[in-house]
Amino acid sequence: MKNPHLYGVILAGGSGTRFWPLSREKFPKQFLRIIGEETLIQQTVRRLLGAMPANRVFIVTNEQQADSIELQLIDWKDELKENLILEPEGRNTAPAIGLAAFHLMEKDPEAVMVVLPADQVIKQPVKFQQAVKVGAQLATEGHLVTFGIQPTRPETGYGYIQPDRRTHLCSKGTLSGYRVAQFVEKPSLQKAKRYVRSGNFYWNSGIFMWKASAVLEELSKHNAGLFRSLKRIHALWQSGDSKGRVPKLYKQLESVSIDHGVMERSSRAAVIPVHFEWSDVGSWSSLPEVGDCDDDGNVRYGNIVDLGSTNSVLYADQRIVATIGLSDMVVVDTADATLVCPKSQAQNVKAIVKELKQRQAPEHLEHRTVHRHWGSYTVLEEARGYKVKRITVTPGKRLSLQLHHQRSEHWVVIRGQARVTRGEQEFELHAGESTGIPPETPHRLANPGTTPLEIIETQNGPYLGEDDIVRFQDDFGRVKKRKA
Amino acid sequence: MKNPHLYGVILAGGSGTRFWPLSREKFPKQFLRIIGEETLIQQTVRRLLGAMPANRVFIVTNEQQADSIELQLIDWKDELKENLILEPEGRNTAPAIGLAAFHLMEKDPEAVMVVLPADQVIKQPVKFQQAVKVGAQLATEGHLVTFGIQPTRPETGYGYIQPDRRTHLCSKGTLSGYRVAQFVEKPSLQKAKRYVRSGNFYWNSGIFMWKASAVLEELSKHNAGLFRSLKRIHALWQSGDSKGRVPKLYKQLESVSIDHGVMERSSRAAVIPVHFEWSDVGSWSSLPEVGDCDDDGNVRYGNIVDLGSTNSVLYADQRIVATIGLSDMVVVDTADATLVCPKSQAQNVKAIVKELKQRQAPEHLEHRTVHRHWGSYTVLEEARGYKVKRITVTPGKRLSLQLHHQRSEHWVVIRGQARVTRGEQEFELHAGESTGIPPETPHRLANPGTTPLEIIETQNGPYLGEDDIVRFQDDFGRVKKRKA
Repeated sequence: MKNPHLYGVILAGGSGTRFWPLSREKFPKQFLRIIGEETLIQQTVRRLLGAMPANRVFIVTNEQQADSIELQLIDWKDELKENLILEPEGRNTAPAIGLAAFHLMEKDPEAVMVVLPADQVIKQPVKFQQAVKVGAQLATEGHLVTFGIQPTRPETGYGYIQPDRRTHLCSKGTLSGYRVAQFVEKPSLQKAKRYVRSGNFYWNSGIFMWKASAVLEELSKHNAGLFRSLKRIHALWQSGDSKGRVPKLYKQLESVSIDHGVMERSSRAAVIPVHFEWSDVGSWSSLPEVGDCDDDGNVRYGNIVDLGSTNSVLYADQRIVATIGLSDMVVVDTADATLVCPKSQAQNVKAIVKELKQRQAPEHLEHRTVHRHWGSYTVLEEARGYKVKRITVTPGKRLSLQLHHQRSEHWVVIRGQARVTRGEQEFELHAGESTGIPPETPHRLANPGTTPLEIIETQNGPYLGEDDIVRFQDDFGRVKKRKA
Repeated sequence: MKNPHLYGVILAGGSGTRFWPLSREKFPKQFLRIIGEETLIQQTVRRLLGAMPANRVFIVTNEQQADSIELQLIDWKDELKENLILEPEGRNTAPAIGLAAFHLMEKDPEAVMVVLPADQVIKQPVKFQQAVKVGAQLATEGHLVTFGIQPTRPETGYGYIQPDRRTHLCSKGTLSGYRVAQFVEKPSLQKAKRYVRSGNFYWNSGIFMWKASAVLEELSKHNAGLFRSLKRIHALWQSGDSKGRVPKLYKQLESVSIDHGVMERSSRAAVIPVHFEWSDVGSWSSLPEVGDCDDDGNVRYGNIVDLGSTNSVLYADQRIVATIGLSDMVVVDTADATLVCPKSQAQNVKAIVKELKQRQAPEHLEHRTVHRHWGSYTVLEEARGYKVKRITVTPGKRLSLQLHHQRSEHWVVIRGQARVTRGEQEFELHAGESTGIPPETPHRLANPGTTPLEIIETQNGPYLGEDDIVRFQDDFGRVKKRKA
């Protein structure tokens, strides 16, 4: 029987730097298909469904990623429609978890939370669910439970947890829970090697279980200021926050992890060493852990023409990527940016993203293909005075009724059926037909058909920014607040 | 005073494999701006102009590259308009040089030829011209002269020439000519090291000087079959080759280099050790020899974001290329293909091109941007059912009057002024205006203005091959024989 007080809390606010150029600030790792048919966030939701119904899964994310998350989780759109918790901005895990706990407390004072990042890979869902069962028992007893992963290498980028073997809390099958003897954040290589040898240290998986009430008690005890601020924010949200005070309060929150802010200080911390294969796929160099390698140890995707490379990650999005005699390299080629580095330097891609952000290069922010509620668009070319896009509109959807002051737009239908509003006129276009929209002309594009509508849009004018837009009517409530 | 019998013969039939993906079968190395403002073939023409007027420069190439060569050499279009010698296909250097010699003999029985590849780098044109002067003297005396380059490394990919120091033929300033003691083609590394140490072996530069009559005499002596075939081909060309026999004869020609077919066998071979800096830029790894390196030994071009790479060739055509900690690597990123390999493997790019050719991948053949007499076009995207191009038309030029059976075309003017013929209509379009051309409709695009015309063309239809075209009228004589 499923535990009726069990809730999932998925932390989905990733920043998208470590898998650049495949991930972007607006398209972080959780949206990638790293392994299998589904994206990481889809896999994360599915992982929880063995333990609870979908309507008990909550997702903490931010405004910027909300649209994409809704699209990614469209299979569960009815169950999840009230379950997105939107932070104004990311302030690390403690605020995100604290807010989720306040939210759940109100629904169910006995709520037990399974907290897990949206962008990890866990290969055995059944073993995961067994661990959740044991964790729920300890959590119900008031412990703050972490899942500990048997380390396979002396990784210095992770936190380590030592169980206190004298304090055996429970057992079920091959799983046992212990109090935590100590947490060690990012040890030296020497220490890490010692930990791995000892057999009594585990990686901190970033997966936690606790009662919402328990984690809030511990937060108020060890970080009273943050607790009070979160309580106030929760109350403001409840009352509608008509004066928009939440974003200001959020900016002032301490950016702190739940590990540092609560777990390392709490006497109620417990650890369950778990048996499932786990990876946080922390960088391009970790792909071989989770992906399928060829006989030469390469992880390959897309149109790769290779001669004799070994142990490399070779990713081609669309174009041909030719590689010769590489070893332990990462090559990632996307529509607008390419990355080449040794595997050993893959962590440094963060510095590249930082540099691009400083240059205000769009390549750090989003892909050439951008997903919207009504479909998606891909920028084919952009230069002074013009922009060419391929636009796909989902059957039954339409864009907002809008006009532009400074640009004309020209639409050629290449597939499907378009209903076009242009000024006072309304007409249909089919594949091979086209129309032009002069500046200052209200217009709208809709797909009345049952197959996707694809058009090529050529924009022309002195200013082509997305902010040259006046919206008259919008199917997604964005007349004021959101972008098209 | 300039020698009135001196002629330049530029061999411009390169295959474009070694600098793939920047070079293509239809866009070989000679068309690249490897160093400086001008392309290699432009530099090669200019190199000769110190010794002769432009109308005495001849270019041996093939039909496929003729358009591009005319475009590249547009600065000298009046002087060179009768000077392209078009082989039906490349059969190595002996046939190309033999044909040029027959051609020059007819113009001037005393003709002295300077034969040089279109795709080398020579940094000191004045030293080159001094060498040509000495070479002309020896050539006039009947010698077959090669220019020998002081070797700087034990390169095993070149031919080596040993002068016979006892047979001093002439001196002028610091330059002397000698009879050749021996030619050695591509020696072992051991031998090459010995040659470099000895100080008495020179690289074969591939640059030759001789009287047209002399090289033909030697060809008839050492390769009588080839001589007879070339004589016949020359005669057929003179008579107009109305029955198209030349291409068939050409296919049967022995594919042989002038070195192997004549020089190595002739007793009239002479060598002038020259002093100019020379490079045949034989692969990506040779770029640092001729290009400008940064402080870390990298040759960089385009939008490169690098962290700590050394001694690498980093080339970004348009998109962002991010590189971290590379050493001795080659990264070349173009609109439709990317190459990544260690410098030491750069020669193997040939094998990649061969593989692409076998797959019939267009990326081996041409770039997304294709140059035409009337301007150029760039394919922005191509997929089933549609193709999007940006088309640029040079002021005063126009495309042929044409129609397509299976596709519609839609034109949006993004810059400049278009004169459009569509069926019976003729009208002008300006930036921001558009029109559609249904299938089976005769149409023509012209630029009546004084600035380049740029349009975005979207093609739509079940078949988009370049051969779905009916031409009614063409400014470039291609109604029957050439592609648009």
